[in-house]
Amino acid sequence: MSTDPLVVFTPSGKRGHFPAGTPILTAARQLGVDLDSVCGGRGICSKCQVTPSYGEFPKHGVTVKEGALSEWNAVEQRYDDKRGLKPGRRLGCQATVQGDIVIDVPPESQVHRQVVRKAASARAIMMDPATRLYFVEVEEPDMHSPTGDLERLERALRDQWQIPAVKADLSLLSKLQPTLRKGKWQVTVAVQRDHREGTARIIEIWPGLHEQGLFGLAIDLGSTTIAAHLTDLETGEVKASSGLMNPQIRFGEDLMSRVSYAMMNPGGDREMTAAVREAINDLCAAISEEAGISKELIVETVFVCNPVMHHLLLGLDPVELGQAPFALASSESLSLPAHEMGLTTMNPRAQVYILPCIAGHVGADCAAVALSEEPGKSDDLVLIVDVGTNAEILLGNTDRVLACSSPTGPAFEGAQISSGQRAAPGAIERIEIDPVTKEPRFQVIGSDKWSDEAGFALDIATTGITGICGSGIIEAVAEMRMAGLLDASGLIGSAQQTGTPRCVPEGRTHSYLIHDASAEGGPRITVTQGDIRAIQLAKSALYAGARLLMDEMNVDKVDRVVLAGAFGAHISTKHAMVLGMIPDAALDKVSSAGNAAGTGARIALCNIAARAEIERVVREITKVETAIEPKFQEHFVAANAIPHKTDPFPELASVVTLPSPAFNTGGDAEGTGGRRRRRRG
Amino acid sequence: MSTDPLVVFTPSGKRGHFPAGTPILTAARQLGVDLDSVCGGRGICSKCQVTPSYGEFPKHGVTVKEGALSEWNAVEQRYDDKRGLKPGRRLGCQATVQGDIVIDVPPESQVHRQVVRKAASARAIMMDPATRLYFVEVEEPDMHSPTGDLERLERALRDQWQIPAVKADLSLLSKLQPTLRKGKWQVTVAVQRDHREGTARIIEIWPGLHEQGLFGLAIDLGSTTIAAHLTDLETGEVKASSGLMNPQIRFGEDLMSRVSYAMMNPGGDREMTAAVREAINDLCAAISEEAGISKELIVETVFVCNPVMHHLLLGLDPVELGQAPFALASSESLSLPAHEMGLTTMNPRAQVYILPCIAGHVGADCAAVALSEEPGKSDDLVLIVDVGTNAEILLGNTDRVLACSSPTGPAFEGAQISSGQRAAPGAIERIEIDPVTKEPRFQVIGSDKWSDEAGFALDIATTGITGICGSGIIEAVAEMRMAGLLDASGLIGSAQQTGTPRCVPEGRTHSYLIHDASAEGGPRITVTQGDIRAIQLAKSALYAGARLLMDEMNVDKVDRVVLAGAFGAHISTKHAMVLGMIPDAALDKVSSAGNAAGTGARIALCNIAARAEIERVVREITKVETAIEPKFQEHFVAANAIPHKTDPFPELASVVTLPSPAFNTGGDAEGTGGRRRRRRG
Repeated sequence: MSTDPLVVFTPSGKRGHFPAGTPILTAARQLGVDLDSVCGGRGICSKCQVTPSYGEFPKHGVTVKEGALSEWNAVEQRYDDKRGLKPGRRLGCQATVQGDIVIDVPPESQVHRQVVRKAASARAIMMDPATRLYFVEVEEPDMHSPTGDLERLERALRDQWQIPAVKADLSLLSKLQPTLRKGKWQVTVAVQRDHREGTARIIEIWPGLHEQGLFGLAIDLGSTTIAAHLTDLETGEVKASSGLMNPQIRFGEDLMSRVSYAMMNPGGDREMTAAVREAINDLCAAISEEAGISKELIVETVFVCNPVMHHLLLGLDPVELGQAPFALASSESLSLPAHEMGLTTMNPRAQVYILPCIAGHVGADCAAVALSEEPGKSDDLVLIVDVGTNAEILLGNTDRVLACSSPTGPAFEGAQISSGQRAAPGAIERIEIDPVTKEPRFQVIGSDKWSDEAGFALDIATTGITGICGSGIIEAVAEMRMAGLLDASGLIGSAQQTGTPRCVPEGRTHSYLIHDASAEGGPRITVTQGDIRAIQLAKSALYAGARLLMDEMNVDKVDRVVLAGAFGAHISTKHAMVLGMIPDAALDKVSSAGNAAGTGARIALCNIAARAEIERVVREITKVETAIEPKFQEHFVAANAIPHKTDPFPELASVVTLPSPAFNTGGDAEGTGGRRRRRRG
Repeated sequence: MSTDPLVVFTPSGKRGHFPAGTPILTAARQLGVDLDSVCGGRGICSKCQVTPSYGEFPKHGVTVKEGALSEWNAVEQRYDDKRGLKPGRRLGCQATVQGDIVIDVPPESQVHRQVVRKAASARAIMMDPATRLYFVEVEEPDMHSPTGDLERLERALRDQWQIPAVKADLSLLSKLQPTLRKGKWQVTVAVQRDHREGTARIIEIWPGLHEQGLFGLAIDLGSTTIAAHLTDLETGEVKASSGLMNPQIRFGEDLMSRVSYAMMNPGGDREMTAAVREAINDLCAAISEEAGISKELIVETVFVCNPVMHHLLLGLDPVELGQAPFALASSESLSLPAHEMGLTTMNPRAQVYILPCIAGHVGADCAAVALSEEPGKSDDLVLIVDVGTNAEILLGNTDRVLACSSPTGPAFEGAQISSGQRAAPGAIERIEIDPVTKEPRFQVIGSDKWSDEAGFALDIATTGITGICGSGIIEAVAEMRMAGLLDASGLIGSAQQTGTPRCVPEGRTHSYLIHDASAEGGPRITVTQGDIRAIQLAKSALYAGARLLMDEMNVDKVDRVVLAGAFGAHISTKHAMVLGMIPDAALDKVSSAGNAAGTGARIALCNIAARAEIERVVREITKVETAIEPKFQEHFVAANAIPHKTDPFPELASVVTLPSPAFNTGGDAEGTGGRRRRRRG
């Protein structure tokens, strides 16, 4: 047994004997203890802070006496004077082993620290971003053995950080010489690894020790909205989040109208590419200003998006995505320079990573949901639904994962609804209809109170009541059905049939009046028969997609359902089930994952191994194509009705209209039959 | 022993038995015979043409009978009808083995064919360029197993050409889908290998079989001139060569004036970078137009240049190259996209390769000379001198190679000479002075005749006699010395001393009149005392550099001398030795290598292995720094005189002026002493 002092690290429990005088950082590295250091043990970065413990540690079988560590030294004192060390902390590179010792590595000193994603989620993100900072001392040039400054920097990275080879762009090379001299041959470099090529690239260089941190953007590029999360690449902390409308909406509300725009208008794809890139540049500029972070510090951006947005972002004509066989230009993940994509409001050498697409209809956004929700690691059979203008649907467990997308259209987002609007202050987001009086009460974004509670009017005084958002319209339709205002086919009854004057005639059908401020010049908010039809189409498409995957999996029910998407977070699962949006499941088995696609982007931003993982996972997912599958149409038609236990009035003749084909299958060889059906019954 | 037919390939002599029915191309591949094919045996590219031989072949121990190959088939007939096959030729992918056969592979069917560099040179360039064409058939997309078009193209390259992985830029990706469809899933791609990363990149894609070839540029970027050679990357043939003046001359004639310009003028380096890039763009556009080759077909460019030009080309501030320790930003070779360097008159995805620099004064141009002349493979000790505004000097043999550069200044190129001019029509390039009459006769660029021969006046009627170029001034000075017009110190004698009225007073010194057309309004061409001094400075610098390397090598003489550079090709070795430009060697041991730097660029363009080779060689070269070496100054001073067997008149007081320091060594710590000396004697 060694007579050298014993060093025990917590929380890892790793232990070993080291000769007296060994720095704690050295001991940690030899044991593989996760202890950070940017400056490589020079006592200037303070990343290797540790807390020594003294006293009896029966658990570790060790007694730590005074003097087990070397004396507080001048380097530590200087650092403490300048920036302050927390009480009890030592610098791991300065304090050396003198006797048996227990050393605690606080979370902020761990390279691979874990970031809790959110309270609701059990899992954490393990920090291991592609880009990290390295402080190096570079040899000065010597006329007698002439090598370039870059080559000596490379050697320093190899010798001091075991980074075998790095690449550098011309623009980096052009600032290399002045920076090395300004830093007196000490510099900090941001080095980015490429997980596929196994190469590394110098993204940025600063003189001396760089202490302003390193940041990345996780961007969820949706058809309707663009959301960005500015993330600290050292801590994983989200410094700011921001979003804006996708300006491509002016070229078409849904994806297929944008593809049509590109097909009909020469250069139309380039117009849309320019519009979305400009919006992303604006968003990045705004978010970095909000967080007070220089754009040069944003060194990475991860995108998740559907295939059409993917192609339009990259400047690829999406025309092939509008017709069978829906061929992607490239399905694998992409790593490329941000400037090549016209992204200018970040570091000029920032790199973009785009998650792989699963299929021509099932994009990198769905891959991100798979990365975040990990259906392939679930023991029970989980159905994951990401509701947006297109719904991405995943079904799977540890055996197998299936994926498809379903063209729900924008109704769930409040678009194409007569009183519909985005989820913004003033929008009705929750609604209840009394089954006896048929009177509604509701909640509006911006107030916690129900409309019949005291103080409601005051809360909404500034915003007013402006419309119904996506979650509101779902609740409205489900409540109307439960209150007997709708029959199973979706037809709104008349005032006579329903017994409430709120069912008012409108043309040849009826509407249900929720709120009328027209006397004061305000809006008159109703649910029209057209709104019901739009919701029926959307929910049928969603349900049919889920059923199709269940057929493929050969199951009749799922163990649990996860609703993803910003919208999924607000949806009432009870109402969704009444409406028949999702297959039946016990209410406690339906959960919301929040913006799972955005979370997937953040994971890929914070952990390089996650990139390789999702690339592997996507290759193993079974892709199911809804557009050419006759069964999808069958399920779709069958799902149109809104059955409910209590059917208060007899069926009326119903109008069933299939959605206009979201994708042109290029002929009708698959026998899907005519796409529009006429009035039945 | 096999009973299968024997196939013997000539000229390789490779042989083997193959079952009847084996295509010749297949047999060749199995035996490792160098037989080209772009289309992979589909009978459309015709690259695999072979010539079968019939009759008795005692040398190969085989008798070839009629019917030893399969019948001429429809594919061959179609090709012959369309484009014509030479008599006796067959397509190797169509003709199959039927009996013992001797197959000759003509040079144009060899992938690694050899290109004879020039009549004077023994060595040839082995064709194996980084970029090659591959014809592939790509699988069509399938909705049921959705992969991107790029991924299916990658698979085709892997399956059909054993290319493991390829990268593609966004701009290539954006033309991928329409090109695949236009070519009906048959395309030709240009794939470029990177010899260091071991990766490959798709540079271009064409529908169907691409038959317009592939081209590259070898560019010798000098301080004074830029020369480009447009080269066929399949055959190695130079399709066109062109040159123009380096427009940076307006910022300074020599390198150090340009470095000074950058130091004195903020943004001056960027001005010079823009100027040289624009000139290169113009040159490329002109040369591809001259050769009738679309600029999209230029997929590679190799540059050789000195370190200052290297930095200015790349957009790197050359300031560090103007002061000790002369640190390069990067000394290793560089591979980068042409567009990153602002080069636009070639394929948008063309790649640039720049040879490594040897040291802060010894550039990629010297590396190119080493690649072309291979001193490290020479059994005898060879001194290689590349004469330009700076002279690059290599000395070595199989044991060891040394390199330095010497600041000769532009006198050897006709600059800073009173009647000096570029080597262009009208320039005196050769001169003889009768030792008795002291009368000159000369040759002018544009005529083969001497000035005293009949028809000379007619030949030069359009150009006139305009000045003296570099080789002319060297001959003039040497001839003046041999004719007794100069003393050993370089002083021109008076008419009295020399006995010729052509020695005319000019201020306090004398000039020698070569040609006087002033009566007809033409020029008066003289060699002034100042011209002699300029040539003395240049030749002393050159000689001192060579001596310094000889000292380092510990030798007093060299076995042979190679004069490189466009100028080296025109120089008279006899006159150079009279002048003392180079150490003494037997006249038959002095040869000209022509533009060895340009040849080195062509080699690196045509053969990818040469890139790895020169990178290795450069690392092994011993770099000798002239600027800090006191011995260089000693040799320089000692070399100033022009000794000659017959000294016709006594020494006169001489003026010795050292060249202005070409490089500021940043203080005088090395004890090189003052750099300017005053009138001696």
